[in-house]
Amino acid sequence: MTSSPYLQNQALKDRIITADQAAAHIKSGMLVASSGFTKAGDSKAVLLALANNTQNQAYQIDLVTGASLGHDTDGQLAQAGILRLRFPFQVDRTMRKEINKGSLYFIDQHLGETAELLKNGHFPAIDVAILEASKILPDGSFVPTTSVGNAAEFAALAKKVIIEINTSVTADLQGIHDIYPTGIYPGRSPIPITEASSRIGTTAIPLDTDKVIGIVWTDIPDSPADIAEPDPETSAIAGHILDFLHQEVEQGRLTKSLLPLQAGIGKVANSVLHGFADSEFEDLTMYSEVLQDSTFDLFDSGKLLFASAASITLSEAYQKRIFENFGPYKDKILIRPQDVTNAGEVIRRLGVIAINTAIECDIYGNVNSTHISGTHMMNGIGGSGDFARNSALSIFVTTSTSKEHRISKIVPMVTHVDHTEHDVDVIVTEQGLADLRGLAPRQRALRIIENCVHPQYKDELRSYYERACTLRGGQTPHILEEAFDWHRRLSSSGSMKKTVEQGCPTV
Amino acid sequence: MTSSPYLQNQALKDRIITADQAAAHIKSGMLVASSGFTKAGDSKAVLLALANNTQNQAYQIDLVTGASLGHDTDGQLAQAGILRLRFPFQVDRTMRKEINKGSLYFIDQHLGETAELLKNGHFPAIDVAILEASKILPDGSFVPTTSVGNAAEFAALAKKVIIEINTSVTADLQGIHDIYPTGIYPGRSPIPITEASSRIGTTAIPLDTDKVIGIVWTDIPDSPADIAEPDPETSAIAGHILDFLHQEVEQGRLTKSLLPLQAGIGKVANSVLHGFADSEFEDLTMYSEVLQDSTFDLFDSGKLLFASAASITLSEAYQKRIFENFGPYKDKILIRPQDVTNAGEVIRRLGVIAINTAIECDIYGNVNSTHISGTHMMNGIGGSGDFARNSALSIFVTTSTSKEHRISKIVPMVTHVDHTEHDVDVIVTEQGLADLRGLAPRQRALRIIENCVHPQYKDELRSYYERACTLRGGQTPHILEEAFDWHRRLSSSGSMKKTVEQGCPTV
Repeated sequence: MTSSPYLQNQALKDRIITADQAAAHIKSGMLVASSGFTKAGDSKAVLLALANNTQNQAYQIDLVTGASLGHDTDGQLAQAGILRLRFPFQVDRTMRKEINKGSLYFIDQHLGETAELLKNGHFPAIDVAILEASKILPDGSFVPTTSVGNAAEFAALAKKVIIEINTSVTADLQGIHDIYPTGIYPGRSPIPITEASSRIGTTAIPLDTDKVIGIVWTDIPDSPADIAEPDPETSAIAGHILDFLHQEVEQGRLTKSLLPLQAGIGKVANSVLHGFADSEFEDLTMYSEVLQDSTFDLFDSGKLLFASAASITLSEAYQKRIFENFGPYKDKILIRPQDVTNAGEVIRRLGVIAINTAIECDIYGNVNSTHISGTHMMNGIGGSGDFARNSALSIFVTTSTSKEHRISKIVPMVTHVDHTEHDVDVIVTEQGLADLRGLAPRQRALRIIENCVHPQYKDELRSYYERACTLRGGQTPHILEEAFDWHRRLSSSGSMKKTVEQGCPTV
Repeated sequence: MTSSPYLQNQALKDRIITADQAAAHIKSGMLVASSGFTKAGDSKAVLLALANNTQNQAYQIDLVTGASLGHDTDGQLAQAGILRLRFPFQVDRTMRKEINKGSLYFIDQHLGETAELLKNGHFPAIDVAILEASKILPDGSFVPTTSVGNAAEFAALAKKVIIEINTSVTADLQGIHDIYPTGIYPGRSPIPITEASSRIGTTAIPLDTDKVIGIVWTDIPDSPADIAEPDPETSAIAGHILDFLHQEVEQGRLTKSLLPLQAGIGKVANSVLHGFADSEFEDLTMYSEVLQDSTFDLFDSGKLLFASAASITLSEAYQKRIFENFGPYKDKILIRPQDVTNAGEVIRRLGVIAINTAIECDIYGNVNSTHISGTHMMNGIGGSGDFARNSALSIFVTTSTSKEHRISKIVPMVTHVDHTEHDVDVIVTEQGLADLRGLAPRQRALRIIENCVHPQYKDELRSYYERACTLRGGQTPHILEEAFDWHRRLSSSGSMKKTVEQGCPTV
């Protein structure tokens, strides 16, 4: 395979190796870093070679990425049993199982903090970084592919670097990256972003070529995003949010261009963003983590002016359509490091409207985003905390029930807290929207129960709250003896619903 | 009383009124704002007049401040029953009782966010602001006293303003304030602080004199801070922290000047700061909320170069000593708005070492800073969340037990979460220090149990953790049926300790 135009640095032309050869550089005990953010721009050859080739039973590495990897890589690494520690995020079914068995340590981190923690000595030094590039430039710097994530920090921090040059990526992506090092204290400067479209950095990631131990060629596209079609419940949630934003405009608290939008991955976020296409809102911007299919539909509808994120993660059909004709979008997108996209500093300054998904919420507005029944990890907190804490409006969405109403997503007390009452302004289910701004906990409880809870659970939740007020009182009334009764019932009977046999709990 | 040199603005000279006259301007239903941060620079006349004069049973106002008020003002307002809502912080025994009875709504807020929430429409407009000043300048701007807190934002946002000119404050304070408006989005700029000593604003608070409805004279000093002498437990905690910081320097992660320090109010913080006076550390700085007695001892020892905070809160002896001879400290202190001192942006940029107090911690490192037994408000989260989330090192301190060992401060699961595992790097009790950096939850549990728990509770906590791993497993093993057993025992028997009669819980 010819090295040009993908490999323009002379010194690196004789370092081309196979994925297996690259994997052989990774020794047991190492902290390994890989590019990749929400399945985009990840290592597609070396990590899989590592998973497939390692025979040594005692071989174990620690792995840090931007966020989730594609191509079943996390699953194969977990299956191979070669990970001791994984951070800061994952979405893999096999890996999740190993994490919850306790056979693989997982550190669930705010995605905006991982680079900060690495630079700050919370972890040992990175031994090897595996970074996907679309091109290496004459000076050794490289153009990333569909994500930046933590790649720039990994390139700077790692002792050794392996580059995967992915020839399947459209050359049109060159120029959309905005690489800005947040630096180390003391003496560092503000991140100078003042609007979603502020360009502050370079279009390639600087790299000390002396650290490069191998160049690996690949031509494998990113794993496609799952397609999540709207359903009546997600459409209802999207409708409530759009109505709410409409009222905010009417009351003069927002303009029709709103504030920069952030939306997590998934059906609801996609539904909301699609809803904007037919709305009164205009000249919208996004300051988010991930650009999904709906982002490009919003560009096409003329509603969206600009979008900033750490990655582009598209379905198969959109990958084909968008990347084959990227020109019209090129000046409207910046892909940046995740310690910039998720920087509290910038999110607070811009005043973002953040829409994230809850696993469960409680009557006071505390949110669990990560742990099923308080113990079992789902994916991780991701960037939801970075946005919820610092946004102008922090909105959490969930259906009011799941598993054919056997689970209420609004519970007396969440079994794990990722976002405290302080960081949750609005909760939305298909039942309705609870605007919690300016309310004390007892007021929040009444509004959440009234507006968001499924009718099958409303009476019991109201009863819990009222009895908690009478029996215990306090700023945040609870009956600790009963707070997790719904979860206990779910565990023993498969449903949170009270059966006749179970009767009333004694207090 | 002569108006000069305290009142230099011509237009305001004929607006001098009594506290009672000023209070009469405050009508039922209003949102009232008062200066004051940790008992410093608060309204000392008008709010008390309001508490004492109101006869109308239906009269109720909402009150927002910087933080806690001194002089029993919060207690008298609560006693008078004229508050409907209070935010964002309080420390008063009477007020706490009313809050926990549910007869007074309290919103517990990150202190760095209150101004942001007011500007952002989370609350109605402020009707009247009562602001303490040491001087009104010819252009109508005013020099604050011992705190800034939210006074500058209140002056800008309120429809009407009452100024309390406090003639007891030393004129030497003029020049130490650094008033910087953080502005509103879209289009706002970074807060340009790059070190604790960066001066970015003006020395007086701008004021539209047309809004001033009255000038009230007072000469009442701030309530003195309670003196908290070190005891063996707090000294042990301070010792563990100093040892830990020493190790961080030895390992090259910190220099001898450390990073800017933040310390909450109280015995432990005072002990730690006093410990620095005899330490190897030098050229220290503080980027904190409150400057306490210990700050001035550190200045006197030559260890501290500079301190930035929202207020100066001193004991009676220190008030006398420091304010009567303020000259030597004047160039070493900046007193700023609390949305600047507590700005996540600045805290993250500088890399602060934050030391805050926990009411209880759990084995995974989640911290409850506010709610006794999960229901009853103590004081509020204050600025602890602003600092814990954004600091370079987030340290939480607590004694391992209280009430003669009847309460363990390390529990299986906290009953209320203010700071999640993501925001807690180090936990310290008199038993020892748990450095949680780079650890997954199961590792965190073992380290916290081993290093921080009192011997009387260690076996049972270890048993809980081990059984949770076996029975439930997961990323964060818990047994929901038992998670609050210690709190239930406390509630029923007055002690968290297991008695023989209670036997083993069934699972």
